Amino acid sequence: MDHYEELKNICEGRITAAPAELCCYAADGSQIKGKPDYVVFPKTTDEVSQVLAYANKHLIPVTTRGAGTGLAGGAVPVRGGILLDMSQMNQILSIDINDIQVTVEPGLVADKLNETLKPYGFFFPPDPGSAATCTIGGQISSNASGMRCVKYGTTKNYVLDLEVVLADGTVIHTGTNCLKSSIGYDLSRLYVGSEGTLGVITKAVLKISPLPKFRKLIMISFPSPENAGLSVSRVFAAGVVPSACEILDKTSVSILTKLDPDVIFPRDGDVVLFEVDGSSKNAVDESAELLASACEEISSSILITDDPVKMKEIWDARRLLGAAVSKLDPTKTRIYVGEDLGVPIQKLPQMIAKVYEITNEIGITPMIYGHVGDGTVHVGLFIDVLDKDEWKKLDIAADRLHLAAIELGGTISSEHGIGAARGMYMEKQCGSAFGVMKAIKKTLDPNGILNPGKLGLS
Amino acid sequence: MDHYEELKNICEGRITAAPAELCCYAADGSQIKGKPDYVVFPKTTDEVSQVLAYANKHLIPVTTRGAGTGLAGGAVPVRGGILLDMSQMNQILSIDINDIQVTVEPGLVADKLNETLKPYGFFFPPDPGSAATCTIGGQISSNASGMRCVKYGTTKNYVLDLEVVLADGTVIHTGTNCLKSSIGYDLSRLYVGSEGTLGVITKAVLKISPLPKFRKLIMISFPSPENAGLSVSRVFAAGVVPSACEILDKTSVSILTKLDPDVIFPRDGDVVLFEVDGSSKNAVDESAELLASACEEISSSILITDDPVKMKEIWDARRLLGAAVSKLDPTKTRIYVGEDLGVPIQKLPQMIAKVYEITNEIGITPMIYGHVGDGTVHVGLFIDVLDKDEWKKLDIAADRLHLAAIELGGTISSEHGIGAARGMYMEKQCGSAFGVMKAIKKTLDPNGILNPGKLGLS
Ligand SMILES: Cc1cc2nc3c(=O)[nH]c(=O)nc-3n(C[C@H](O)[C@H](O)[C@H](O)COP(=O)(O)OP(=O)(O)OC[C@H]3O[C@@H](n4cnc5c(N)ncnc54)[C@H](O)[C@@H]3O)c2cc1C
Ligand SMILES: Cc1cc2nc3c(=O)[nH]c(=O)nc-3n(C[C@H](O)[C@H](O)[C@H](O)COP(=O)(O)OP(=O)(O)OC[C@H]3O[C@@H](n4cnc5c(N)ncnc54)[C@H](O)[C@@H]3O)c2cc1C
Repeated sequence: MDHYEELKNICEGRITAAPAELCCYAADGSQIKGKPDYVVFPKTTDEVSQVLAYANKHLIPVTTRGAGTGLAGGAVPVRGGILLDMSQMNQILSIDINDIQVTVEPGLVADKLNETLKPYGFFFPPDPGSAATCTIGGQISSNASGMRCVKYGTTKNYVLDLEVVLADGTVIHTGTNCLKSSIGYDLSRLYVGSEGTLGVITKAVLKISPLPKFRKLIMISFPSPENAGLSVSRVFAAGVVPSACEILDKTSVSILTKLDPDVIFPRDGDVVLFEVDGSSKNAVDESAELLASACEEISSSILITDDPVKMKEIWDARRLLGAAVSKLDPTKTRIYVGEDLGVPIQKLPQMIAKVYEITNEIGITPMIYGHVGDGTVHVGLFIDVLDKDEWKKLDIAADRLHLAAIELGGTISSEHGIGAARGMYMEKQCGSAFGVMKAIKKTLDPNGILNPGKLGLS
Repeated sequence: MDHYEELKNICEGRITAAPAELCCYAADGSQIKGKPDYVVFPKTTDEVSQVLAYANKHLIPVTTRGAGTGLAGGAVPVRGGILLDMSQMNQILSIDINDIQVTVEPGLVADKLNETLKPYGFFFPPDPGSAATCTIGGQISSNASGMRCVKYGTTKNYVLDLEVVLADGTVIHTGTNCLKSSIGYDLSRLYVGSEGTLGVITKAVLKISPLPKFRKLIMISFPSPENAGLSVSRVFAAGVVPSACEILDKTSVSILTKLDPDVIFPRDGDVVLFEVDGSSKNAVDESAELLASACEEISSSILITDDPVKMKEIWDARRLLGAAVSKLDPTKTRIYVGEDLGVPIQKLPQMIAKVYEITNEIGITPMIYGHVGDGTVHVGLFIDVLDKDEWKKLDIAADRLHLAAIELGGTISSEHGIGAARGMYMEKQCGSAFGVMKAIKKTLDPNGILNPGKLGLS
């Protein structure tokens, strides 16, 4: 059986096995590597169904790829086999403002959806930092979130129905187009976050929201990162639900000031960027005041602004942070490991202290930023990639960080997912629930062809 | 083996098999009937675990019961066996305002939670009409919702972690106490809405929300129920997300005016009660104006009020509706079948027209009310319960209503669940996804002891 020819037939020629091209598919945003044997580019659900049925029969691994921006190796074919590149299934199939929903193909780039919705006064709230390139399918499969999710909720809150192709090629619908439904097991939610291990998403019906009309930014600096962490619970206890809540520790701020010495950031501490939004200017003003006074006692300085130029400058700087880190020390590179911790809000000061303690002991530089309103603590670790000892230190640091998060009742992944990078912690993280996950995987993918080597499942 | 004695031992004497008591457990809020052989009253997770392990070994059916207010027979032990009455596991274990969460036992009555949270300025938003009596465990297991869910989302949006006892007695945690996490399959969401068929919930960590400070009611009457249905999409398209959106057709309104001739309801049409809420008075005022003008063109009259006395009167009348229906015709009783339809918002006028068409043809009186902002259409059907022919008509009407909802791309249950009442429609409703549900059930409950006869699974 010539797999290449068979797959080529199914996808009407949209396939490659050219070594140089295969290399392009051997990585994502993480350190995980693995080359596929074939890359196919399906255009229809039927093609996906035929590919899976074929792969299932011949026991060929199938890994689905959106844009490959994932940070846990989810889209990396660590066991070879077929890579399904979904980028050609990228259409917005319908916009139903009156039903408050859209129907899209999974390869659609997230920002495209929001650009299209803007003139209607609506948006799709989940906003990963990668929204300019990542796909809706990738977003759903890793339950991605972003700055706005502290108010608007993560991707899972917006999925009404998914068309999914199962391992054997069967096509199912996980829900309905209704805004509400109680019809047995919530398969939509099972597929959100399943990282391509239970089926391939070929269509999604997503709920959308009216765009808020007014926004105000409150930039607060604190004398310590622990105080910055503390601010979050104070704000919630004051009854304010901010539409963004981002921490940048002193190191993060110093990176931004190196990048642009004039950047409007306070130089005197660890910063939290809050935003409040709403449909009424007065409400937004009131929330901003309430928020600021909740933080006053524990902060060093407070800036409130609704000047769009200033707000854009500040948010652009925040968005640049991930890429700008090389400014810290040009000999060091940031590596994405142990980068996606999360804890219950009250544990933020403890988690932050723990990050500094661990990295200090090991002798590695950290920076801390992230969607702290959800308890997310992104840790940036920098090493000289040519130094083998530094790689070792990095591994030790990542390991200790993951275990520290679990010990604090937190999570090893707040939003980037498990992929191949964090599978080894699943037993410890999930306890006996991991057995349930394994059982579900075995039932829905008995031959283990769907994204093997992920979630610690195989 | 004397099951009674063994179970008595496990639950330290908290068991009954007295025929009169068993009869009390043979029904819920629906027409479904079925008597248990034993009722046990566990007080701890360990007791639940021991009961399940024992039942699993001896193949005894186990049905879990919260308050038995369910409207689909979910808590009715249609195959006999053990009934687990969860009412003695009813404690609030912790209130963590700073973590924006509470931890509770499943037998806790929903309103108790909100009474306790009120002084903190927080609330648990999902608010079924039965909140005064129903339990949090029942609410989670049927993904209950209510008037507020159009803005705040249903129960599933508030579940962070569940402690669940599996069929064999294993205890798992489905999530973490973090507000956000991406750690494999979302088991919390799988258990929400699973109606006791996959395990018994023994503890729940729930997210809470700050209580809104201001509310305003907008009562609008329309010349036809179709126009009333249309108003919903107009309001959303105007960018307003109301905090309640309840339809009452002419029949429903006439029931209320018979009950209290002075009730503040317009007499000239089908009514939609909208509410808007928020943390700012101005914002609430603006939203109310925007909402009213979105409906002006298609409505007969509009009343806007934030007078707490008037608002209470109107909402109390709405809440009485279910019970007040006997006022329509004292010889008729309302039976809960085909009562929980849902459609995408734009299909509301069509669904409403279909309800009148079907019931007219069959010669049965309907009333229509419900959380129409989510697409929910509650249909109240009245019969003379002594007339066998009327029962037959009722069955035909319910059947046609369910099929009509499916045909319109809607749902046979918007919020009450499937239970034993709607299992026969699951294949038609879910298509090949029903096979996935069956496979999951088989995997997690291989002996089929958990709530058999429900969801059409057995
Ligand atoms: C600069 C940067 C910033 C980021 N910021 C954030 C952030 O703020 N929040 C956040 O949550 N994440 C963030 N991420 C991580 C990542 O971008 C997101 O998880 C994103 O949603 C992945 O989308 P993708 O299309 O690139 O998916 P991929 O990386 O291609 O795939 C991700 C996973 O989804 C699976 N998958 C993809 N498509 C399908 C499909 N159709 N059916 C089934 N499975 C599928 C893959 O197999 C894989 O397991 C960031 C990444 C970068 C590089
Ligand atoms: C007057 C009235 C108004 C209502 N209004 C609404 C409404 O607005 N919205 C709405 O959604 N519903 C409504 N309902 C339906 C019902 O009240 C809700 O579904 C409620 O949440 C059920 O709670 P309960 O404790 O009575 O559950 P029960 O009826 O006892 O059980 C419901 C289901 O949950 C399972 N279950 C209960 N506890 C557990 C547990 N600990 N572990 C596992 N499974 C468990 C049972 O086995 C059963 O399948 C209404 C009912 C009435 C009578």
